[in-house]
Amino acid sequence: MSKLPKRADDYSAWYNEIVKRADLAENSPVRGCMVIKPYGMAIWEKMQRTLDDMFKETGHYNAYFPLLIPKSFLSKEASHVEGFAKECAVVTHYRLKNAPDGSGVIVDPEARLEEELIIRPTSETIIWSSYKNWIQSYRDLPILLNQWANVMRWEMRTRLFLRTAEFLWQEGHTAHATAQEAIEETRTMLDVYARFAEETLAIPVIRGVKSANERFAGAEDTYCIEAMMQDGKALQAGTSHFLGQNFAKAFDVKFAGKDGKLDYVWGTSWGVSTRLMGALIMAHSDDNGLVLPPNLAPIQVVVVPIFKGEDSVAPLKEACNRIARLCKKLGISVKVDDRDTQSPGWKFAEYELKGVPIRLALGLRDLEAGTVELFRRDTMSKQSVPELQLEELLPELLEQMQRTVYEKALAFRQANTYTVDSYDDFKRLIEEQPGFYLAHWDGTPETEERIKQETKATIRCIPLPGQLEGIAEPGTCMVTGKPSQGRVVLARAY
Amino acid sequence: MSKLPKRADDYSAWYNEIVKRADLAENSPVRGCMVIKPYGMAIWEKMQRTLDDMFKETGHYNAYFPLLIPKSFLSKEASHVEGFAKECAVVTHYRLKNAPDGSGVIVDPEARLEEELIIRPTSETIIWSSYKNWIQSYRDLPILLNQWANVMRWEMRTRLFLRTAEFLWQEGHTAHATAQEAIEETRTMLDVYARFAEETLAIPVIRGVKSANERFAGAEDTYCIEAMMQDGKALQAGTSHFLGQNFAKAFDVKFAGKDGKLDYVWGTSWGVSTRLMGALIMAHSDDNGLVLPPNLAPIQVVVVPIFKGEDSVAPLKEACNRIARLCKKLGISVKVDDRDTQSPGWKFAEYELKGVPIRLALGLRDLEAGTVELFRRDTMSKQSVPELQLEELLPELLEQMQRTVYEKALAFRQANTYTVDSYDDFKRLIEEQPGFYLAHWDGTPETEERIKQETKATIRCIPLPGQLEGIAEPGTCMVTGKPSQGRVVLARAY
Repeated sequence: MSKLPKRADDYSAWYNEIVKRADLAENSPVRGCMVIKPYGMAIWEKMQRTLDDMFKETGHYNAYFPLLIPKSFLSKEASHVEGFAKECAVVTHYRLKNAPDGSGVIVDPEARLEEELIIRPTSETIIWSSYKNWIQSYRDLPILLNQWANVMRWEMRTRLFLRTAEFLWQEGHTAHATAQEAIEETRTMLDVYARFAEETLAIPVIRGVKSANERFAGAEDTYCIEAMMQDGKALQAGTSHFLGQNFAKAFDVKFAGKDGKLDYVWGTSWGVSTRLMGALIMAHSDDNGLVLPPNLAPIQVVVVPIFKGEDSVAPLKEACNRIARLCKKLGISVKVDDRDTQSPGWKFAEYELKGVPIRLALGLRDLEAGTVELFRRDTMSKQSVPELQLEELLPELLEQMQRTVYEKALAFRQANTYTVDSYDDFKRLIEEQPGFYLAHWDGTPETEERIKQETKATIRCIPLPGQLEGIAEPGTCMVTGKPSQGRVVLARAY
Repeated sequence: MSKLPKRADDYSAWYNEIVKRADLAENSPVRGCMVIKPYGMAIWEKMQRTLDDMFKETGHYNAYFPLLIPKSFLSKEASHVEGFAKECAVVTHYRLKNAPDGSGVIVDPEARLEEELIIRPTSETIIWSSYKNWIQSYRDLPILLNQWANVMRWEMRTRLFLRTAEFLWQEGHTAHATAQEAIEETRTMLDVYARFAEETLAIPVIRGVKSANERFAGAEDTYCIEAMMQDGKALQAGTSHFLGQNFAKAFDVKFAGKDGKLDYVWGTSWGVSTRLMGALIMAHSDDNGLVLPPNLAPIQVVVVPIFKGEDSVAPLKEACNRIARLCKKLGISVKVDDRDTQSPGWKFAEYELKGVPIRLALGLRDLEAGTVELFRRDTMSKQSVPELQLEELLPELLEQMQRTVYEKALAFRQANTYTVDSYDDFKRLIEEQPGFYLAHWDGTPETEERIKQETKATIRCIPLPGQLEGIAEPGTCMVTGKPSQGRVVLARAY
């Protein structure tokens, strides 16, 4: 196997090669759409399961709404249509027929839809059109729903997981009697996402609010979690939107309060997608391949026998299976790779590439000594341990690695987060040392747009109180010198 | 609440009303597409979880392939295009724009796709186009994949769950080095489906093979499980297809064997869908509403306090919560409904409608006596039981109800299965007493077609050996008098 490109040489090529060679995903014959391969899917399924449990613990239920949305629905919310109508897949016909010349099938011109349908880019419109029938009084509220679904946005430049035309996601859509309750829901779900990112993905995130320019099309406020990748760029890892009464007004969804008065319903929506797979890869992996936090690893422990002669095969296989049984008893997912078609060295490289957290290897000498060679992927370090200690050691080590991976990412972010007060410095530094820049901004869209045009950096978020130290003090905007309430996070982003 | 229509009066109206009033699903603004509501989705999620575990136990992995398929892919397998090109949703454009007159958005004529894309009606073509790149030698085989996805078939007449334009399903797609292995896979998955139907859905099924007319478009053989609904009609509850080398030839997927010789790969595909929700409802439910086998019930036990005066509220709520804690400890999903906005009678009717297997009700007198009133939904019977016995009783009863529901459905099928030898009798009987008819058939498509035209009944399957007693003896076709190898199952079907 040839080596991976190095991060320092070509971060982008390194990412693409990991996705491909760790068998996570590949491009499909359909432009911009990906095939998620079994190993990648197994990681996404672990994310799904964890998130789904968290949603249910916070009182949400799953539902499913149609893939296709009548074109006219998009236009009902003025800013929503601006944000989503541009690049979407449009269904215009419902039948094919044989080509008269026998060359294949063609679209049947007689099967034209009266109104075109679009493949959902997000489901606020179709869901609020249902909520109109579901909600009459305050007794029908709140509605706390989530949907796991595929969505489609016709992106021009795509990259596996990070930006694809079709992607998998979950979208929560809730309806409430008061603004206060809807805002609390928005914040609760932001917190769920942040805990998921930090505890499961092992990625530290900054919780914040988007500036008006970066808000979801149709939201009053967009909350987000922002993560730093190893090239110093930001990745938005999840968003939670306070929709105000915008979609209720667009779809005429009113409820009678306890006092009998009619009012529009308050809404939220929130989502994370297969983009998180991209974040996971870029936050932790190294020049040897994928590094996975143990909580998301489809295989947590791989056991590899080092055969030496025919006589070694049976006892080593037996020992491997004994260790595998132990792992299963401990609730650890394990794979024994005792194929004789590949060398141990090939297998070692393969499982390093795939980010298996712990590798146990054993040969005849280990068997005699009652030891195994334990390799941990995060630190690439090896040690010999007594087999009898595995029962205690493995669970401990997996827990420890989950923390280590997180702490490494946190240290990286801290080392690449800078405070800057001069716009000239910022313009130079963002080129020289990519990272998060904490700077004062005057709060205007004009200044924000100017920064974006001149530096390709954007305001990632206005951090919530307590997220970062020493940024809450007022100051003056680094661009205009106008007053600022506190520092915001600037970075180039995926 | 008004009563449900009775099955005997109007089976179809009864079905529609249960789906609606038990909050399982509803029609959407998009023709033929449904909204699956939270209670319906919770049942589907339980089906998914159980099936997914069974697929993984049998060595399968999940993957995800694109929603959209290039139009030309459909034409590559001759009979496949005949079966699926007819009624499918066609994406022709990838952008909308503002209407010049400000009336909303219109399709941007400049954003026309070079080649139209269709929304997958099933994924054999897109998946085999990937397998071409994944398979070089016998070492790459078998590939055992499954996908959970939404698919779309532009049906003209739709009914919630039973036949909808968009539906949710899983589709397994496997690739093998030998015909033998592929046939074994096809049979293994048929067996998984049959066990799932009988053990989880509590629906007895007949395992069989489809006649050539009813085969999947592109298969060499289609295996199926057939279930009887309470109106005597059949419902195909799952299919497993032996694809031969058809898709391998269509997409040029060859592998080098151990001897180095190239050969086309052998394939299978198999699927079940949200149609199973329709089967579940129609197989078990009664004139009071849904009846759910406990294994699929989102709420297995509901606890309802019977308040009498302010003083009763606190002690009864406490008792309800005590019972709920017990249920949780036992791994039983439980809901306490202590709302004071609805009467006990209203709640009883509501949970009967929703098919909650066990209802526990208790008032002050029960509290004093240390008893609860236990109502079981399947038999609609009540008894008073000591609260202290619940720990032992509840798990036992749920298990017993799972069996009872199955046995009732089996007894119903047996009572409505007939042997018939005269075509005149058959034509009369299929009108008078709907059910499964075991009859001799000469094996020709012509006779099958004639039966279908004249009676609206179809050959549901040629049962596998051992499925039904006394049908393996040869005889003469009831229509033509020609020889027959054994009886087949005829019925009208959903």
